[in-house]
Amino acid sequence: MTPTPTSTPTPTPTLDRVAGPSDLKALSDAELARLAGELRAEVIDAVSVTGGHLGSSLGVVELTVALHAVFNTPFDKLIWDVGHQCYPHKVLTGRRGRIRTLRQKDGLSGFTKRAESEHDPFGAAHSSTSISAALGFAAAREFGRATGDAIAVIGDGAISAGMAYEALNNAGSQGRRLFVILNDNEMSIAPPVGAMSRYLSGLYASPPAAALQQMTEGFEAALPGPLREGARRARQLVTGMPGGGTLFEELGFSYIGPIDGHDMGQLLPVLRAARARTSGPVLIHCCTVKGKGYAPAEHAADKYHGVAKFDVASGAQTKKAPNAPAYTKVFGRALTDLAAEDERIVGITAAMPSGTGLDIMAERFPARVFDVGIAEQHGVTFAAGLAAAGMRPFCAIYSTFLQRAYDQVVHDVALQRLPVRFAIDRAGLVGADGATHAGAFDVAYLANLPGFTVMAAADEAELMHMVATAAAHDSGPIAFRYPRGEGAGVDLPERGVPLEIGRGRVVREGTTLALLSFGAHLGECIAAAEALEARGISVTVADARFAKPLDTDLISRLATGHAALVTVEQGAQGGFGAHVLHHLAATGALDTGLRIRTMTLPDRFIDQASPAEMYAAAGLGAQDIAATAMEALGVAAPHFDRQRA
Amino acid sequence: MTPTPTSTPTPTPTLDRVAGPSDLKALSDAELARLAGELRAEVIDAVSVTGGHLGSSLGVVELTVALHAVFNTPFDKLIWDVGHQCYPHKVLTGRRGRIRTLRQKDGLSGFTKRAESEHDPFGAAHSSTSISAALGFAAAREFGRATGDAIAVIGDGAISAGMAYEALNNAGSQGRRLFVILNDNEMSIAPPVGAMSRYLSGLYASPPAAALQQMTEGFEAALPGPLREGARRARQLVTGMPGGGTLFEELGFSYIGPIDGHDMGQLLPVLRAARARTSGPVLIHCCTVKGKGYAPAEHAADKYHGVAKFDVASGAQTKKAPNAPAYTKVFGRALTDLAAEDERIVGITAAMPSGTGLDIMAERFPARVFDVGIAEQHGVTFAAGLAAAGMRPFCAIYSTFLQRAYDQVVHDVALQRLPVRFAIDRAGLVGADGATHAGAFDVAYLANLPGFTVMAAADEAELMHMVATAAAHDSGPIAFRYPRGEGAGVDLPERGVPLEIGRGRVVREGTTLALLSFGAHLGECIAAAEALEARGISVTVADARFAKPLDTDLISRLATGHAALVTVEQGAQGGFGAHVLHHLAATGALDTGLRIRTMTLPDRFIDQASPAEMYAAAGLGAQDIAATAMEALGVAAPHFDRQRA
Repeated sequence: MTPTPTSTPTPTPTLDRVAGPSDLKALSDAELARLAGELRAEVIDAVSVTGGHLGSSLGVVELTVALHAVFNTPFDKLIWDVGHQCYPHKVLTGRRGRIRTLRQKDGLSGFTKRAESEHDPFGAAHSSTSISAALGFAAAREFGRATGDAIAVIGDGAISAGMAYEALNNAGSQGRRLFVILNDNEMSIAPPVGAMSRYLSGLYASPPAAALQQMTEGFEAALPGPLREGARRARQLVTGMPGGGTLFEELGFSYIGPIDGHDMGQLLPVLRAARARTSGPVLIHCCTVKGKGYAPAEHAADKYHGVAKFDVASGAQTKKAPNAPAYTKVFGRALTDLAAEDERIVGITAAMPSGTGLDIMAERFPARVFDVGIAEQHGVTFAAGLAAAGMRPFCAIYSTFLQRAYDQVVHDVALQRLPVRFAIDRAGLVGADGATHAGAFDVAYLANLPGFTVMAAADEAELMHMVATAAAHDSGPIAFRYPRGEGAGVDLPERGVPLEIGRGRVVREGTTLALLSFGAHLGECIAAAEALEARGISVTVADARFAKPLDTDLISRLATGHAALVTVEQGAQGGFGAHVLHHLAATGALDTGLRIRTMTLPDRFIDQASPAEMYAAAGLGAQDIAATAMEALGVAAPHFDRQRA
Repeated sequence: MTPTPTSTPTPTPTLDRVAGPSDLKALSDAELARLAGELRAEVIDAVSVTGGHLGSSLGVVELTVALHAVFNTPFDKLIWDVGHQCYPHKVLTGRRGRIRTLRQKDGLSGFTKRAESEHDPFGAAHSSTSISAALGFAAAREFGRATGDAIAVIGDGAISAGMAYEALNNAGSQGRRLFVILNDNEMSIAPPVGAMSRYLSGLYASPPAAALQQMTEGFEAALPGPLREGARRARQLVTGMPGGGTLFEELGFSYIGPIDGHDMGQLLPVLRAARARTSGPVLIHCCTVKGKGYAPAEHAADKYHGVAKFDVASGAQTKKAPNAPAYTKVFGRALTDLAAEDERIVGITAAMPSGTGLDIMAERFPARVFDVGIAEQHGVTFAAGLAAAGMRPFCAIYSTFLQRAYDQVVHDVALQRLPVRFAIDRAGLVGADGATHAGAFDVAYLANLPGFTVMAAADEAELMHMVATAAAHDSGPIAFRYPRGEGAGVDLPERGVPLEIGRGRVVREGTTLALLSFGAHLGECIAAAEALEARGISVTVADARFAKPLDTDLISRLATGHAALVTVEQGAQGGFGAHVLHHLAATGALDTGLRIRTMTLPDRFIDQASPAEMYAAAGLGAQDIAATAMEALGVAAPHFDRQRA
């Protein structure tokens, strides 16, 4: 039952009059409310065609309209945290004509992006950066930069990260005029965790209240006449905190809220009043519903956080039948099987239970999976503590997000040689999420840490062996990386078997050229080998498995037994290939000549497209490998049939 | 006036009876108070001989005694945040005999260290990790690991970091039994900043209060008879919060305090009661005085945070007259001079104004230096916001601490090509602070980021040029690294001159061997060259200046014009040398043979000693460079006069 996406255009007469945010200034409050309705229909229709982050965008439709009605971008700097809720913002800021290219090759980014629009003053994709950036703009204004107000919009999940706390703490102390809109839907990607989340729920349950004294004194008088009715309502919202201040007030912010983020009658007067009368930092606590206004989204467990193309009428998503199980699921199942036999195995995720496959383990062993929230730093050191106490923790974090905990990996794990296991999902290029989510740097930033073991899985069966290898490895930290998406379709073993540490494998024997693959580009290496063999070049293909420790015997055999050696990896320079080169240089293997090439991700960020298109753009397709090999061998590169390679 | 350190041993009859923490269980409260006095004298005497972190250790003498009297290490896990306040702990846990080897080669570490003692269950040196690690132990206990209570002791500066907040948030939510001792001296290294600090001061100013209901109910009855008097005092401390809860209670912790951290009559009963009656997470707010009990420390502005050897009677420190200005000061002065001419220049430090030299700029332009507190993540993205608004921010952060903000460097700075300037102090090996503070990885983790410019200063004059280069570079992010300590003693220019991006320089012309230095090992390269010239080998020495973009012309000239090429850097593999190798491989320069060696820090962590000793241990002395060159040239390595080389 794969429904055909049907685009049923809703009339959008108000939206049609909006070419940019300045057009909102001419609309009455009633028209703004109508605009929000039309904007919601437009976003639903667009995402039904492209897929994307629908739920979070639907939750901020009214907020987006209200912010653009009250503030003046691009002079004012509106910064959406994470940025995946920005689709309505894109429609209102001159990008409506391209909105059906969201997340496609050469299309609009699925996040805010400076290069895309002057209305995106600070791009995002990782969470919890918006307050820091907004404070930068706020400070720059005082040094004479031509910039208006700075407004950060941040979710309740994102504000629980340490970085956001650091920013609140610093902003509260600096005392500069700054607006933080807390978009509280009690749901980040998964249901929220942590004490902060419980605390916010408590605020929401209390009667609406705030302690912004300067707002209540002469509040209505400060507003133009027509707004006084709304202002009276806003005043009710901002009077009298019972007892002490909120956590935000303790950090130096004025606090307004909670207000209903879908009620333009609350949003507009509160934002107008805050804008008119605030001098220092202010936090506006705004409660919204993820997926608001689209029944299939509101009723879905994940509120349509990320969706494929779908049928607007039914909400049914068009998902291609997978050819092979996803790496994520293979990891989750393999870990769960091992956990059933070894009670020391526990899992740690930073707000990504289903994204990492740990939800599979949590179903069977709920007490042994820790979702620490968006808190990678804490998560890694918490895992280090567990390891120091004799547990076998698996930290499952995407490559790009593990960057958040780099110091903890170095200082708490590597320096102490603690056996924390890192399951690094989304390694390499990831597709529609684009450059911000690329897992490009992990091999480079891990493989030079003393005592670390670093693996990459060539396919999903290898991943199972690497999970088993990591479980059995108690003598130090160990990491294994694997890509986003479907596996290669190989047969899966009944169970993984621990690999010998530092040993690769030869998957195809040849005589002239050696291809040494590290990770999931093994398939491309084999395709390149087949294309070269068709030209009469005999090719050895090896799977290194380990970037650290290197299989120096294998490398030596490949280097001396072939006319050329090409390494291939799904990562940036400074990683696997670099360590092979360091080793060859140190042992004098380069002294008398070695035709070696190291194929890595290129020295630029690759925009979103399908992973295959991204790797082609990166010069890492099978035909690129074959061409590099030909160049290394000193023969002219052949023309490859792209279908084939 | 260099006083000779005089060791005037104070009699320590009580301390002499303590071989380990279990001996404290036999002491009366009065004897424990005496023990604290003797322990203080012992620590002062020891640090007068070794130098070290005196102020923070003196601030926790009573707390250390009380914790060891009440808890049972190593079964209970006592985790000192940062760990530089651990000298009294080391004395009480079997390391008194080696305490006068603190921070020396082959001596005790200046921080807690797992390898050193079973009483150090989780080592530290970077801040704010203790709560996460303690929570790991607390969770492991519930899975049957043989471990007792977990206690984290964390300062008011360290608890303001995002990571500590993440840990509090998660611990409050997990609800496990866990002790966090907030050691509040209103002073981290510099005076504290941030709203949290102001908040803590407010708690201190309020009447002592707490809301731990279960402690007040039947509080005295739960204690053995002799302790009831102390317990009555403790009860006064823990009754009745006025109004709402503290920030910690809002995060799910029971809160006790504030108590006087130098009054054993408060510490002992509160800790005993908390241990006896707590079930969930509890925070004990303990106020102390940095440098307590030693007048010269209490009166010093920095409370003797880190001191050289000193005379106990006078407090006068034995500081060697420097031979050259420190890199840090050269940076601070150069930046201040540029800031005088360019109002867009601002400085950002994460709680290290004097450590980074930004205090020099702050003296002249106080509003243009931002101390964000221990908050590297926020600091970097705040700088990115400033850059996006057209400012010219200089983020001055030690190499080892920049690891804390790696994702922000990648995601907020590099991806957006924002011209944030990174002044990376303490690059390479740093001496007495040891492996935890080594700046080993920055080149590897920065030089593969697209669009980044990465420089290293060969000497203090070069540093001035690089500050000027960075100031003038608006087209993307740029970093320059330099070592801890004194410069090379070269003449300083009147002002720095912007360097051509991606151009190195030849400092000595030869014909047979090329040494290509990146950074402050240029002096060692020249020394090696001189030793080799004495043996008849003609040596070119070049200073690469840039790891990115590489000076490919220079590299090509060195590679083709000499019999061997050796790169030298003060960093781990995957950095400068790796990028040189990648380049040579890609261009086919290795095809026909190139005698190349890449000298980097070795694949192990190097323990504390003098920087020269550490580099010798790392195999990076001038004689090692010469020996590597001889090996590359295929001639027997000479015996070098170590004095010379």
